[in-house]
Amino acid sequence: MTLTAPDAPRPPEPRAPGRPRSSRADEAIIEATLDLLAEGSSIEALAIEAIAARAGVGKATIYRRWAGKDALLRDALARLKRPPADPDTGDVREDLLILARSIGKNKDPRAEKIMPCLVPEAMRSAEQYTTYQQIVEPRRAVTREILRRGIARGELRADLDVEVVLTALTGPILIQRMLRWNPRLDEERFPEQVVDLVMKAITA
Amino acid sequence: MTLTAPDAPRPPEPRAPGRPRSSRADEAIIEATLDLLAEGSSIEALAIEAIAARAGVGKATIYRRWAGKDALLRDALARLKRPPADPDTGDVREDLLILARSIGKNKDPRAEKIMPCLVPEAMRSAEQYTTYQQIVEPRRAVTREILRRGIARGELRADLDVEVVLTALTGPILIQRMLRWNPRLDEERFPEQVVDLVMKAITA
Repeated sequence: MTLTAPDAPRPPEPRAPGRPRSSRADEAIIEATLDLLAEGSSIEALAIEAIAARAGVGKATIYRRWAGKDALLRDALARLKRPPADPDTGDVREDLLILARSIGKNKDPRAEKIMPCLVPEAMRSAEQYTTYQQIVEPRRAVTREILRRGIARGELRADLDVEVVLTALTGPILIQRMLRWNPRLDEERFPEQVVDLVMKAITA
Repeated sequence: MTLTAPDAPRPPEPRAPGRPRSSRADEAIIEATLDLLAEGSSIEALAIEAIAARAGVGKATIYRRWAGKDALLRDALARLKRPPADPDTGDVREDLLILARSIGKNKDPRAEKIMPCLVPEAMRSAEQYTTYQQIVEPRRAVTREILRRGIARGELRADLDVEVVLTALTGPILIQRMLRWNPRLDEERFPEQVVDLVMKAITA
């Protein structure tokens, strides 16, 4: 792989960061990044050179589209962890339940391998913390919206602290799925049990 | 360091695993293990040879006292994370608050560096999962006891699921301290906010 390797045509205008890219090379680069991470590469060790080799493109192709590894990682991880749809069933408990059951479950099997590795890396560097936040924030936004609708409809107490409640809902389910933190829990029932516990505290 | 390096006298009887050891060599070995982990060694990479060199003992001294690396790690990590005292103030909220505020806070500064690294390792191997569980279980036992006393005194609902409640209390605080999971939270107030939210759901 060299800087002069053949390349897909460059899009006519520079694109805003995070905007979906559609060329075949972009797709191959994103897939190569996710494959290498899922095969056990740490984010730190992941090299643009290795991504280029796996994607069958030149390093220049990557640098033409992304400012650097962090920008590429953000797009790749955003692809992996699309934010969930807002269920908006009209019932807070039902909405929270759908969301709670989806925590830590992913359509793409590579996510199960990549996400736990991202967590310790997020603890070590500001860049990876930002990347991690950009992936989880859209999920938090959906939960926030569910709680706000519940308050607006009078289902939930008007004085509840939305940030505290969403973290209290998500934290236990995430830590239990990531770590099997408490081996005495029933994994299948736990998301519903947390939702019901929290609902007792926040129902108007 | 060789297998015939000079050595502290062996205790007259083999000791039960986990029982505190008191000789100066044992102390040095435990301290060396914690130092190396705090300096960034992964559990996987940690070698008995390196521990022996740092402690100034022979490898044989270590193998005479511990069956292997896992047993030594369990003792070293148990030393690092002593279970909290049961506050037993007579008031469930007060007890839970004392415990909640201590989550992720440690007297030994090495714990802040070692514990987050143990988490991803715990996810990868059954041995490290067992080690992690042996460290956290005594903490869970204290919370369990607080909740049971609360039920017995009639402060808490008799039908609450103690395992669900203790995980719902600990999970959010742990994930917030480990990862600053939700940047919109007030770190100082969060433990009390979680306790108050959960108390609303479990008070009789």
